[in-house]
Amino acid sequence: MMIAVLRLGHRAGRDPRISTHCALVARAFGARILFYSGDHDGGLEDSVNSIVRNWGGDFRIEYEKGWRKRISGWKGARVHLTMYGMPVLKKISEIRKSGRSKDLLVIIGGEKVHWEVYQMVDYNISVTGQPHSEVAALAVFLHELQEGREMRKPFRGAKIRVIPQERGKRTAKV
Amino acid sequence: MMIAVLRLGHRAGRDPRISTHCALVARAFGARILFYSGDHDGGLEDSVNSIVRNWGGDFRIEYEKGWRKRISGWKGARVHLTMYGMPVLKKISEIRKSGRSKDLLVIIGGEKVHWEVYQMVDYNISVTGQPHSEVAALAVFLHELQEGREMRKPFRGAKIRVIPQERGKRTAKV
Repeated sequence: MMIAVLRLGHRAGRDPRISTHCALVARAFGARILFYSGDHDGGLEDSVNSIVRNWGGDFRIEYEKGWRKRISGWKGARVHLTMYGMPVLKKISEIRKSGRSKDLLVIIGGEKVHWEVYQMVDYNISVTGQPHSEVAALAVFLHELQEGREMRKPFRGAKIRVIPQERGKRTAKV
Repeated sequence: MMIAVLRLGHRAGRDPRISTHCALVARAFGARILFYSGDHDGGLEDSVNSIVRNWGGDFRIEYEKGWRKRISGWKGARVHLTMYGMPVLKKISEIRKSGRSKDLLVIIGGEKVHWEVYQMVDYNISVTGQPHSEVAALAVFLHELQEGREMRKPFRGAKIRVIPQERGKRTAKV
């Protein structure tokens, strides 16, 4: 299964850090691509690409002009994360199964998500039915989807990696 | 166990949305208080309080002038989330046990965390050893800590709640 994330409605002025967090979470939790729609934003792409250069892994960020086509043309399951959807813990094993053979597209919104998105996807999924954060929803969803295995995944081609410590910071050049 | 979160180094100009996401994640994933240090920010408090008024639950946000004292004076376990720490899945059952009888303080940084924090806490814990997001780290940590039970917790005094749907949005006034 390849996991891709589609971040809808990025606004260069208002969302730079939130979108960067979305992209870095996608990467750290095992996705291979972040597509983003809304404003084209070179600064966002630069921040993410610089992390990939140093920390490795097979991940890229790509501007998406046609989100409708990206969703409708996707071959595998499409999961939209929304507080209005069905509880993640009820649906995750079904989604896991459908992701086993095909690629998975996880869609996260900006503040206003077009109603069509709710209709086009295979699953509308909530990570708690409370208002919080697309960054958090994405992380918990990917973590549940992969049952923690994403945390043992190597990041190939890294120049630097962390050596876990009880106290303080230690990194190694690879 | 009562869970509190301490968000260090909030910057009113740069972090308003990230800090709001941290607070809402703390609330949605079962914490009772978010303390924040750095800039005092009435706008941040207003956004969070307005969510609490509508969506319920026993949660508050509080400005913290003395983070050192808050950490050193804390009666229960203190967990600092950092990419340099020990892997969450290795330590979570130990932390769960220590939280059973006492309150738990979860500390998340801004961009630069004072070295003293690493020394003062009981646990430095990483949610992946990769750079991503304090919002995501907090969510996954609280989710692992409570083993998903946080998602079934009621939010008392809510004016509104979501009725989960396969498609579309539905809420109920309570």
